[in-house]
Amino acid sequence: MASGDRLDPVRLWKRYQTYLCCVPELNFMLDISRMDFDEGFLESMAPRMEEALDAMEALEGGAIANPDENRMVGHYWLRDPERAPNEEIASQIRSSVKEIKLFAQRIHSGEIRSERGKEFQNILVVGIGGSALGPQLVADALGNSTDPMHVYFCDNTDPDGIERTLGRIGASLAETLTLVISKSGGTKETRNAALEVAAAFSRGGLAFPKAAVAITGVGSALDRKATEEAWIAKFPMWDWVGGRTSELSAVGLLPAALQGIDIEAMLAGARAMDEATRSRDTGANPAALLALMWHHAGAGRGLKDMVILPYKDRLLLFSKYLQQLVMESLGKERDRAGAVVNQGIAVYGNKGSTDQHAYVQQLREGVNNFFVTFIEVLRDRDGESIDVDPGVSAGDYLSGFLQGTRRALYENGRESMTLTIDEVSPRSLGALIALFERAVGFYASLINVNAYHQPGVEAGKKAAEVVIELQRKVAAALEESGDKGQTAVEIAGSIGEANAIETVFKILEHLAANPCSNCVKSSEINVFQVQYSFRS
Amino acid sequence: MASGDRLDPVRLWKRYQTYLCCVPELNFMLDISRMDFDEGFLESMAPRMEEALDAMEALEGGAIANPDENRMVGHYWLRDPERAPNEEIASQIRSSVKEIKLFAQRIHSGEIRSERGKEFQNILVVGIGGSALGPQLVADALGNSTDPMHVYFCDNTDPDGIERTLGRIGASLAETLTLVISKSGGTKETRNAALEVAAAFSRGGLAFPKAAVAITGVGSALDRKATEEAWIAKFPMWDWVGGRTSELSAVGLLPAALQGIDIEAMLAGARAMDEATRSRDTGANPAALLALMWHHAGAGRGLKDMVILPYKDRLLLFSKYLQQLVMESLGKERDRAGAVVNQGIAVYGNKGSTDQHAYVQQLREGVNNFFVTFIEVLRDRDGESIDVDPGVSAGDYLSGFLQGTRRALYENGRESMTLTIDEVSPRSLGALIALFERAVGFYASLINVNAYHQPGVEAGKKAAEVVIELQRKVAAALEESGDKGQTAVEIAGSIGEANAIETVFKILEHLAANPCSNCVKSSEINVFQVQYSFRS
Repeated sequence: MASGDRLDPVRLWKRYQTYLCCVPELNFMLDISRMDFDEGFLESMAPRMEEALDAMEALEGGAIANPDENRMVGHYWLRDPERAPNEEIASQIRSSVKEIKLFAQRIHSGEIRSERGKEFQNILVVGIGGSALGPQLVADALGNSTDPMHVYFCDNTDPDGIERTLGRIGASLAETLTLVISKSGGTKETRNAALEVAAAFSRGGLAFPKAAVAITGVGSALDRKATEEAWIAKFPMWDWVGGRTSELSAVGLLPAALQGIDIEAMLAGARAMDEATRSRDTGANPAALLALMWHHAGAGRGLKDMVILPYKDRLLLFSKYLQQLVMESLGKERDRAGAVVNQGIAVYGNKGSTDQHAYVQQLREGVNNFFVTFIEVLRDRDGESIDVDPGVSAGDYLSGFLQGTRRALYENGRESMTLTIDEVSPRSLGALIALFERAVGFYASLINVNAYHQPGVEAGKKAAEVVIELQRKVAAALEESGDKGQTAVEIAGSIGEANAIETVFKILEHLAANPCSNCVKSSEINVFQVQYSFRS
Repeated sequence: MASGDRLDPVRLWKRYQTYLCCVPELNFMLDISRMDFDEGFLESMAPRMEEALDAMEALEGGAIANPDENRMVGHYWLRDPERAPNEEIASQIRSSVKEIKLFAQRIHSGEIRSERGKEFQNILVVGIGGSALGPQLVADALGNSTDPMHVYFCDNTDPDGIERTLGRIGASLAETLTLVISKSGGTKETRNAALEVAAAFSRGGLAFPKAAVAITGVGSALDRKATEEAWIAKFPMWDWVGGRTSELSAVGLLPAALQGIDIEAMLAGARAMDEATRSRDTGANPAALLALMWHHAGAGRGLKDMVILPYKDRLLLFSKYLQQLVMESLGKERDRAGAVVNQGIAVYGNKGSTDQHAYVQQLREGVNNFFVTFIEVLRDRDGESIDVDPGVSAGDYLSGFLQGTRRALYENGRESMTLTIDEVSPRSLGALIALFERAVGFYASLINVNAYHQPGVEAGKKAAEVVIELQRKVAAALEESGDKGQTAVEIAGSIGEANAIETVFKILEHLAANPCSNCVKSSEINVFQVQYSFRS
């Protein structure tokens, strides 16, 4: 179907009915009628989709689905331990959920208390990437002002950012249960933030271990530290769960349970969606349809950006969550055969109708380099609505804006899909997470990439270590030369790093801006003539 | 320069020095050395850049720069009233700033108090798009736990979202100064949210007008309402300031001043950047260079997405702010000559190094459909830093991650720019806002589109009104038929809207999910056979 060739209402209604995919037990619908695929498309993709379903079946059965790291990929077992490849894993999953619920109950009841003998009132999650994005999404989507505990996050190595979060917590730091989440225990941002938080506890005359909980791999540096310092509790991360699919492990379930969220309902929602998305009938399998639509939209090469537009404030962070899930899984240089393919799909979005007053202008009229995924939530609110116009509520407008924008995009030849859920609940959120996890897995099969590794992330860490190493040399050279001013070029030369002069210059500029480095600089019009020295 | 053809360190350092653009009075630097433009590029673009500078000069002089709406475009006058085209406008600007400062001072001193005689402690901003994104950015970038007032936002017509914000405010609603921001006064999301907030005041036995402030165009519906109901205060929005460039008008300055932010410093920072970006020497004009780099990266057709990566928690919302500024300004169907061009640049991003654990995997290795704009902040924090490794602070890691990622992207043939500021302050934030405002204006000139209108936004509002109208008919038909069940097709037929059957179906599903609509539906396996009736 050419993009200018719009269907009349009757044919469009027929297309809508033909392709609408319903999952009744989840009150879930996926509408792909506004994606401009040809009638033969699904059939033409059937053999590859069959292979993707086979690969997923093998993965769920315990195959080494992530061969680069020689790992099984088991996030689907988390909500259905019966499916785990052996009883050991199944029982680990079951006992982890049981322990999480028990621990949350002991915190809520006051059985476990802060060092000062008071009930814990806050949760501070220290983690990054897969150890933060899921918990942030869930906390925001399902949180209420009546929750038993307030949730805060430190998800970076920005000292000012950490300080600001601690400032918000204020005097209640003593009653702040701190969850440090890191599978390897070696992620520097998380380690640094945890050290900063521990220092704040110390400054307050408090023992950090008496408020600290570790969620980490058994035997990791963090695991050992938590044992040595006798932290309150430890929960496991398993090597068969990747960071970006860890929301339904302790990583996501513990903060959620502490916040008072029904984690069994989250698990049940994910389980029901898993069940629906195992269907070999593609038309009844929303994860298969999503993957196929991504393939259609971007020609299997990521030529179109994925814009995520939930019309619901609570789902504001869903696009951010999906940025990781989709882009880290699919954004790969090489396919499984080793060929350079530079794959991926760019993801962005916030929420409607808010974004209609921001970038939707471009979506309607501008560069057509995207497809929209609307998320519609049928229930407006728990209580009564006031009329904002006679017989019309604020929620009716929200719904009207979604329908109007969906229609206008279609009329302008812009593609969209619409996911419908009945409400934002633990069950529906678990289902959405499961839906996209599986869609990403299917799509990765269709384009033949490994969705479960992230080789580029390691490269980033190593590049930073080189800079930190260089900074140590620069700082030592500065201190040695004392108050003798030297240019960046001179300093780089003196430490035998003439080739790294630019990085040396950047390091010096950073040091000079921070008093505690004791690096001072002269004022020059030309920044390259600035002299740096050490204030003793 | 071909993207695989990387320079050796010596040539790269030379390129860095050649193109580094410094604005000393702002401690600002822009590095474009990692954009792969050829040596002749800037010269080849010189004539068009000259035209863009001419157009900007005319605009600043009061030309009708937005011909479609027959308006002047005067956001640059806001920070330099001397430049306004007449004394009337200049004096309006001056007195508005004076009144804002005076009003904030009267609120802070307790001279103006809540209905119950207490000092106001919260600000609730009700606005959307240009009336929310700037204030949200500034509140988050410059806010601290020690601020004199807490800031909350309602930026949507989502009733649950509004309720949740009110839940967070809780019992202090009585001491919540509510700023309703809408230029036309007719934006439905803002009107609806204001009505919901007013209803909450009423439920609490409080008079909303005694806590309400309007920021709106003189003579608008909101202006009249504020007058009739005797709201606490009114501040003007002028027709020569567009929503997305209104941050340095009352829209942004009033919330900032109430939050205790130095608005004179914001204005001074913007003024200094305006001065620097008036330069006809392109190499010394960072806004011109940004616009030229956007043109280079996307071939003047938006072929590459703009990824905004500030390595600083406080700048998390900058990408969201720029989504509006850039995409709403540039995402246009037609150029100024009326030709269909479908222009725009997609913008996304959050913050580093956090995003390195999310989608930076794709940026490094995946589809090369973007260019990165790093924002480097030299100062780590106000106070002392602890060592996280010997001699190394958390902020050193933040800096190291930025350098490492910048280098790795370059080595992989991915383009980036780096903006450097000394700290996140009112002055530097004002400067960043001014920088991108002008870069957008220049780029619009280069591609010959009107950056100052948004025809697609109106279309979205109208499409929604059609849906609301249809809902009224559906609801009336339902009520008339009482408890007699009918399918969506039958209802659409009965109101003579057979062609709108799909929208009728969506409306019915929405109504049935919300008890107060009194629409109930039967349970059927096939959703299209569901019968809807009215519960009397």
